[in-house]
Amino acid sequence: MKVKLLKYTPEPERAVAMSARLCYSAAGAAELEQSMSEAQVGNLLKKLSDMGHLSTFEHASFTFAIEGVSRVLTHQLVRHRIASYSQQSQRYVAEHGFEYIIPPSIAARPEAKAKLAALMGEVQKTYDEMVKLGVHQEDARYVLANATETKIVVTMNARSLLHFFEKRCCQRAQWEIRDLANAMLAEVQAVAPRLFVKAGPACVTSGYCPEGAMSCGRLAGIEANKEKI
Amino acid sequence: MKVKLLKYTPEPERAVAMSARLCYSAAGAAELEQSMSEAQVGNLLKKLSDMGHLSTFEHASFTFAIEGVSRVLTHQLVRHRIASYSQQSQRYVAEHGFEYIIPPSIAARPEAKAKLAALMGEVQKTYDEMVKLGVHQEDARYVLANATETKIVVTMNARSLLHFFEKRCCQRAQWEIRDLANAMLAEVQAVAPRLFVKAGPACVTSGYCPEGAMSCGRLAGIEANKEKI
Amino acid sequence: MKVKLLKYTPEPERAVAMSARLCYSAAGAAELEQSMSEAQVGNLLKKLSDMGHLSTFEHASFTFAIEGVSRVLTHQLVRHRIASYSQQSQRYVAEHGFEYIIPPSIAARPEAKAKLAALMGEVQKTYDEMVKLGVHQEDARYVLANATETKIVVTMNARSLLHFFEKRCCQRAQWEIRDLANAMLAEVQAVAPRLFVKAGPACVTSGYCPEGAMSCGRLAGIEANKEKI
Amino acid sequence: MKVKLLKYTPEPERAVAMSARLCYSAAGAAELEQSMSEAQVGNLLKKLSDMGHLSTFEHASFTFAIEGVSRVLTHQLVRHRIASYSQQSQRYVAEHGFEYIIPPSIAARPEAKAKLAALMGEVQKTYDEMVKLGVHQEDARYVLANATETKIVVTMNARSLLHFFEKRCCQRAQWEIRDLANAMLAEVQAVAPRLFVKAGPACVTSGYCPEGAMSCGRLAGIEANKEKI
Repeated sequence: MKVKLLKYTPEPERAVAMSARLCYSAAGAAELEQSMSEAQVGNLLKKLSDMGHLSTFEHASFTFAIEGVSRVLTHQLVRHRIASYSQQSQRYVAEHGFEYIIPPSIAARPEAKAKLAALMGEVQKTYDEMVKLGVHQEDARYVLANATETKIVVTMNARSLLHFFEKRCCQRAQWEIRDLANAMLAEVQAVAPRLFVKAGPACVTSGYCPEGAMSCGRLAGIEANKEKI
Repeated sequence: MKVKLLKYTPEPERAVAMSARLCYSAAGAAELEQSMSEAQVGNLLKKLSDMGHLSTFEHASFTFAIEGVSRVLTHQLVRHRIASYSQQSQRYVAEHGFEYIIPPSIAARPEAKAKLAALMGEVQKTYDEMVKLGVHQEDARYVLANATETKIVVTMNARSLLHFFEKRCCQRAQWEIRDLANAMLAEVQAVAPRLFVKAGPACVTSGYCPEGAMSCGRLAGIEANKEKI
Repeated sequence: MKVKLLKYTPEPERAVAMSARLCYSAAGAAELEQSMSEAQVGNLLKKLSDMGHLSTFEHASFTFAIEGVSRVLTHQLVRHRIASYSQQSQRYVAEHGFEYIIPPSIAARPEAKAKLAALMGEVQKTYDEMVKLGVHQEDARYVLANATETKIVVTMNARSLLHFFEKRCCQRAQWEIRDLANAMLAEVQAVAPRLFVKAGPACVTSGYCPEGAMSCGRLAGIEANKEKI
Repeated sequence: MKVKLLKYTPEPERAVAMSARLCYSAAGAAELEQSMSEAQVGNLLKKLSDMGHLSTFEHASFTFAIEGVSRVLTHQLVRHRIASYSQQSQRYVAEHGFEYIIPPSIAARPEAKAKLAALMGEVQKTYDEMVKLGVHQEDARYVLANATETKIVVTMNARSLLHFFEKRCCQRAQWEIRDLANAMLAEVQAVAPRLFVKAGPACVTSGYCPEGAMSCGRLAGIEANKEKI
């Protein structure tokens, strides 16, 4: 999996802080942007994060290039609707030498891994034959597996990202999209740490796990550690 | 493919017409709803359709049960973001006896069809073996094909549906989602004909094909027929 | 203020439960809808509410007719973007006999109330004169007050409503939109009690108040009452 | 009216072109971004604009600081839901020295202008007295006029902006929001001309006016001019 932050709103923290400040000030946005000190930006962002007043976080936007992921992952990813997606098309790009993603639980079982490899070989052969028989690649791709590698460009604003991290950094998310969420989180924390200081699964952001009997128990661990302190 | 309109806003045409009327009237919505005659409802809907003033069409909502479609189709479908989706999960539902969708271009080629059937048999076998080897079904499903049958519940409002039909009833959409769009269109035209009188691909709704060199030429046919009249 | 639930998805609780069930079942939606017992619907809705798995709540949609509210309120209301609005237009509807909303804090102060009435008389007079001088009503309305009465039709799905109630039933929301939120909540609880059993401000839905130093203290009261039990 | 483009996605044209290219290429996004020539970027953007394939335009985001506009304008503006807004709050910012917007049709009529000025004086006086009488400013503001000056920060992506320009650069939009739309268009055309080369009202973008009997006739003028060429 390759995850790269390609583009983002310049000075994303300042953009958010200035917008928040505008709501409570008689001064204008351009003026506020220049006059706010770094400490003021930081204090305001902390307050907004703590109170969950996140509408201003929408003014900071982040665009990622994502490669080496399966179509299992992208089918889950594009269900997040407050976002923009451009995905490599299996209608227009031929899959004569496709790569595929191997889940760790399969990689760890040599027999399963061998079966996967053998099947993917069969899939490739069938796809190629279909195309040779005159089937258009948009239909030949019906034989391709969920594991097939794909590429996608994703843009989300900081508020939508925070929600994405809450759902997908969670232990109950599947490993692949959780890996993606963690990688995206690392990317944005590197350039806008104060927007994402409280980012993570629900147990981290709210100190509460809503998953009931399905909970991974991580929160209990967090609580236990807190008590030790 | 099975497409069934499960639920929809009662009296959807009246709901839209009443909302539109409210914008231009001193009377209230409840009052307008009761006082508008069927002819008034019809005239207003025609005017809104003709002028493309579609915001009020959002007040009518439609929920469909869709079965017997591939995951090729649902991956395209869920890219429409002004909509709500609930899909049968391959994480939680075992695929020990999956069905699959056969594209017409493959069905028409006996050799291709036989290859598809053989491969799907291999896929089923590999999936079953993976699970037996202790791979969780959420990972075993990486071997499943795009062709695998899925089920989904979709809710869209009338405005979003009109946009969906514009893109997906078009000849440039893939056959499967075009079949779905046409089936959904038939369902809603049966219960709200005056909301969907101008529904269809862009060439039908606007008399213009934006696809340039990629155009299917249908519009030219429409134009030619017009000239004959 | 008049708030009336005009239309809604038929059997909204069943629509949501059926959609949720589909995700975890090999059966289809239409089949599930008929086969689920009332108790099964109730149990599933309770589980979804408790775990905050609310995406299926989007399949139930509710349309309200709202009258007797100020443009202060509607300017706040339309900031909720996952919703559909049709509002009485001051461009197209003349305001020669406008009504206005009196905030309770003004109604409680006779001197303030008298000043408001006097000013609204001046506003009406100026508006009427502007129009007589040839100013189009879309420009004459620049003199109209925030207090001016307006009408609006609103459609939201159950998930968006739950978010709306969380923000607007809160004591920190202004009195007028809080009154509206409470009235809308009463309307939907009457027809779909199991979708809205956990509805209300954040302190009610999550047992946590994020407002920090700005908190109304209601939660402390809830906690204190819990301890007494 | 002051309109300033505060922030935007760096190299917005390249971001869009690279995302579009990804859909049809086996190469990855980061690679494509660096390898595309300026001419390739331009050709691709022209093709996307011509065919109305605008989903990739969402990857470019633009944030504006807007001042010196009325609350008439912002009530219209915030109806565009695929956007983010942060507005100066009349709940939290006192209006003891408010400015107001004068519509040109009133400015052009000395008698009307004088009446507006007199009324705004009365409004200011009443607001100040209300606050002195103990009315909180969030309620005192019910007396404030639609004309009252406000400030707002707006973020929209390029696709949403194109739709905004289509509706609000149109002669049928009110003068104030049309002035805003034209000013925003000038700002983005200066930094991303190839994303907005076809931007403007529907008659400009599609060569078709949907407004029927309400049309301003501008399109007829455009057509007439074409014929002269």
